[in-house]
Amino acid sequence: MSQKIWNVYLSGEIHSDWRERIIDGARARGLAVQFSSAVTDHDASDLVGVNILGSEEDPFWRDRKASGINSIRTSTHINNADLVVVRFGPKYKQWNAAFDAGVAVARGKPVITLHDAEHDHALKEVDEAAKATCRHPEQVVDILAYLLS
Amino acid sequence: MSQKIWNVYLSGEIHSDWRERIIDGARARGLAVQFSSAVTDHDASDLVGVNILGSEEDPFWRDRKASGINSIRTSTHINNADLVVVRFGPKYKQWNAAFDAGVAVARGKPVITLHDAEHDHALKEVDEAAKATCRHPEQVVDILAYLLS
Amino acid sequence: MSQKIWNVYLSGEIHSDWRERIIDGARARGLAVQFSSAVTDHDASDLVGVNILGSEEDPFWRDRKASGINSIRTSTHINNADLVVVRFGPKYKQWNAAFDAGVAVARGKPVITLHDAEHDHALKEVDEAAKATCRHPEQVVDILAYLLS
Amino acid sequence: MSQKIWNVYLSGEIHSDWRERIIDGARARGLAVQFSSAVTDHDASDLVGVNILGSEEDPFWRDRKASGINSIRTSTHINNADLVVVRFGPKYKQWNAAFDAGVAVARGKPVITLHDAEHDHALKEVDEAAKATCRHPEQVVDILAYLLS
Amino acid sequence: MSQKIWNVYLSGEIHSDWRERIIDGARARGLAVQFSSAVTDHDASDLVGVNILGSEEDPFWRDRKASGINSIRTSTHINNADLVVVRFGPKYKQWNAAFDAGVAVARGKPVITLHDAEHDHALKEVDEAAKATCRHPEQVVDILAYLLS
Amino acid sequence: MSQKIWNVYLSGEIHSDWRERIIDGARARGLAVQFSSAVTDHDASDLVGVNILGSEEDPFWRDRKASGINSIRTSTHINNADLVVVRFGPKYKQWNAAFDAGVAVARGKPVITLHDAEHDHALKEVDEAAKATCRHPEQVVDILAYLLS
Amino acid sequence: MSQKIWNVYLSGEIHSDWRERIIDGARARGLAVQFSSAVTDHDASDLVGVNILGSEEDPFWRDRKASGINSIRTSTHINNADLVVVRFGPKYKQWNAAFDAGVAVARGKPVITLHDAEHDHALKEVDEAAKATCRHPEQVVDILAYLLS
Amino acid sequence: MSQKIWNVYLSGEIHSDWRERIIDGARARGLAVQFSSAVTDHDASDLVGVNILGSEEDPFWRDRKASGINSIRTSTHINNADLVVVRFGPKYKQWNAAFDAGVAVARGKPVITLHDAEHDHALKEVDEAAKATCRHPEQVVDILAYLLS
Repeated sequence: MSQKIWNVYLSGEIHSDWRERIIDGARARGLAVQFSSAVTDHDASDLVGVNILGSEEDPFWRDRKASGINSIRTSTHINNADLVVVRFGPKYKQWNAAFDAGVAVARGKPVITLHDAEHDHALKEVDEAAKATCRHPEQVVDILAYLLS
Repeated sequence: MSQKIWNVYLSGEIHSDWRERIIDGARARGLAVQFSSAVTDHDASDLVGVNILGSEEDPFWRDRKASGINSIRTSTHINNADLVVVRFGPKYKQWNAAFDAGVAVARGKPVITLHDAEHDHALKEVDEAAKATCRHPEQVVDILAYLLS
Repeated sequence: MSQKIWNVYLSGEIHSDWRERIIDGARARGLAVQFSSAVTDHDASDLVGVNILGSEEDPFWRDRKASGINSIRTSTHINNADLVVVRFGPKYKQWNAAFDAGVAVARGKPVITLHDAEHDHALKEVDEAAKATCRHPEQVVDILAYLLS
Repeated sequence: MSQKIWNVYLSGEIHSDWRERIIDGARARGLAVQFSSAVTDHDASDLVGVNILGSEEDPFWRDRKASGINSIRTSTHINNADLVVVRFGPKYKQWNAAFDAGVAVARGKPVITLHDAEHDHALKEVDEAAKATCRHPEQVVDILAYLLS
Repeated sequence: MSQKIWNVYLSGEIHSDWRERIIDGARARGLAVQFSSAVTDHDASDLVGVNILGSEEDPFWRDRKASGINSIRTSTHINNADLVVVRFGPKYKQWNAAFDAGVAVARGKPVITLHDAEHDHALKEVDEAAKATCRHPEQVVDILAYLLS
Repeated sequence: MSQKIWNVYLSGEIHSDWRERIIDGARARGLAVQFSSAVTDHDASDLVGVNILGSEEDPFWRDRKASGINSIRTSTHINNADLVVVRFGPKYKQWNAAFDAGVAVARGKPVITLHDAEHDHALKEVDEAAKATCRHPEQVVDILAYLLS
Repeated sequence: MSQKIWNVYLSGEIHSDWRERIIDGARARGLAVQFSSAVTDHDASDLVGVNILGSEEDPFWRDRKASGINSIRTSTHINNADLVVVRFGPKYKQWNAAFDAGVAVARGKPVITLHDAEHDHALKEVDEAAKATCRHPEQVVDILAYLLS
Repeated sequence: MSQKIWNVYLSGEIHSDWRERIIDGARARGLAVQFSSAVTDHDASDLVGVNILGSEEDPFWRDRKASGINSIRTSTHINNADLVVVRFGPKYKQWNAAFDAGVAVARGKPVITLHDAEHDHALKEVDEAAKATCRHPEQVVDILAYLLS
């Protein structure tokens, strides 16, 4: 049967270890999965625009320079993904995660959401468009193991 | 020159009068714009699933029934839109607005965001994908007037 | 707000009055919906190929001549639809209904399924891809009324 | 000439050995084909949702959890396929097989159907959209051998 | 039911009255069909390039100037069509008709071919991609009447 | 035959009367064409960003605000066009005209270029992708008259 | 620079050695090109349907069975191609070659035609959609060598 | 994490060493990037048409023969690219660079522009559609290093 390597994009929260738990879990089970994500070093990501392209006075355009470069990476990896996992953590607005989910769904990529039940109502539109809603990273690993079985 | 009627989808916050201000402003200036949006009556929207399809014990599936029906309306109007305006207000997570923005961008629809400067950093990825960021609904009307001039 | 006329394709069972109940219900509520469907006269549909293109000995090719012509109508109306309602009745295989659902979903059309609970397990893949599962035609009308409110 | 490896998705009946006969037949002839399919262990497939994501009272949502996960696998492999073979057996409704066929056709994937003549009339729409209708798995192998010659 | 006006593109032979017979037949039966075609005045079509854009010595480029302009019309009307009828007559190479058929099929437009049985073998690939093969223009009218019934 | 109204987008030079000559010529011949273009008032176009969205110190971002809004209009009308005419005049870089041509071609829109022979070599890639190269606006009108005959 | 392997589909005439001359020429120059084509054994191609799927009385359906299977190979390889070369020889109708060209162009594949000048006028629409018209297979090899330089 | 090799197309100016500086810079930092570009030997590129396909009197058609062949290479590599860098130098019209940018953007490819500030106003539409505007080739290398980190 298929020896396809699955490309999985991990979008969302950068303040917990959910990515590592999925990546380590997949590796521990020997799954043929290749992961990608945005740059998760908060400062490196926020400052990439001015670091490379030069300083900006106005924070709006400072952010723009960074988000332009970051969108190259995000968009390319989502295009390249077989599956997109979107994590919503307990803090911050995380609009970029929901935006990634919208992009992924509109491009026909299956999405798995990962968040606590307390956010269920606020995420009902995103969860509706998703193929599964997980509470723990290990459930994502279980799904990957099943998909690649 | 073109007598095209522009279809504009208004996504996001339902707790202020920004939609009315845009619609009234466009009407006052005689613009050939047809607006659409999600159902903005909060209870009608949240309960449409159980009201029509029958009750659910689990709030997760109660929401699912509603969000499934609502997504028909949202997706169809975004598909039909020439332009999507996404409003982020001061309160709530509003992940559905960011999700709509992602869907619109991935389908090649131009997006205008509408929000206060305090959300600029949190919305930098959405604003980067947008064609303009407005602070007031009247600016959206001004843009529409320009586009249809 | 939008005066969009919704195009709704009605696929599936031809041995009950579910289409009429939806069409009449929508008309009774003054909804701006235009319905389309396959030719529902069973004999006219089955014999259209040989009636127009000439007789065939082999029933396989007799069917092919009919299904070729019928697919022009089906495919065109699904392409043209904002929404596809797929009805599974208590009898027959109805593989064409499930096939239509697959075509509609792959083309990004929202699907509503309409069937009794006894078929839930057999239709779990189709229902998963659908935006709502109704038990009665009147529920479809209620959804249409909501979508066009 | 081309050394292309063909990806072939095998959809449908899980209660006979048709997949094995195609896979073994292709291997015996040394064909450069990589096969994929849904999880064909009936219980594993039906229970994957509740096994990984937690139990559900209502069988409708129990099925939904499973079909969501299974659709990730099905949709990804159909997207990745050069050819989709859809088998209809003598028993059950097999609506998911017809649904897969509709998805495959709408995405421009060539489809081969595999079924007995007794189902010809019920499958006339699916067969019309297919490139060949086989009666035996060995015919599918013969076609593969020809395509890769 | 649907009051859709069908757009039908008539491609191919310009040396017989098949277009008129289809158009007149559809009008006689009051069908809501709008027909389009290439310019069928042979000289006007061949000379449009040099007539408008200036003379050319080399017949290859003389033809190119004409075929560039003609392709605007052809491509636009095929894009706009719900159905493409392709007629192969007894004479000439008529490669542009087969080319139009390929374009139409690849864009997902249903195709009906219209030709005598003597060309069946030479047209087997085009007929395979078509939804029906007619021998007489009146059969095309019959199909249209059925599709719009 | 077809009563299709053609949508024609006029891109490029704003310092001569070529648009008027095409529009007036089409009107004089009673052609069913609807024209669209970018805003051709140079100052209104350059300043739309700061006029509506607020002033900017840096000319790079001042231009960005304008070009974001202008791209909504340009992109929407190109999407809506059956045909795109791109005019290159004797002065300025006119990179936006070549950019529009690239967008139009990649979206499958037929393009007509309009420029003097002195620019032939510099425009060879754009002309190659175009369906016709005209020297005078009246030739564009002649082509429109032919396409709509 | 790029080490891309180019996939080139060779469509058309099967009665001369043009394919071998291109393949041998590319090999002699060490070009990283992978070629594909339809089955060029005339009898094997014509009879594949009845050989595998069973005999047919009517030659129309006998051809259909073959052309269905052959279209799987043709369509898959064109989809997979970076470049499609279409050869028109001195004999036969060769409508399948023109059909392949139409499919390739509509899918955005660059096409090179290969034919004698005597067919220029009959092929003006196909040549217009092509990127180059060659007279000898060696010219195709020269173009490949240039493209991969 | 991902070991994706990025394909980067380098479009535009051929009279300076910007390509070499990007390629050498990426190699020096060990980046997994594969670069492609048009043929940058000016004469080879301009004369490829007549060299391979035969001489032309008229310079317009001489250019056409070359640009047809060159567009195969350009279009294929842009299709294959994850990222397109477009360089505008101080001299010449460089309309082909702006055309490439339009094609890339319309196909959903992220674009980076590379030019001096003196061209900012003339390139405002292209820069708006781009994800970053660089002044020096080394900034492009820095972005690549970040994207692949």
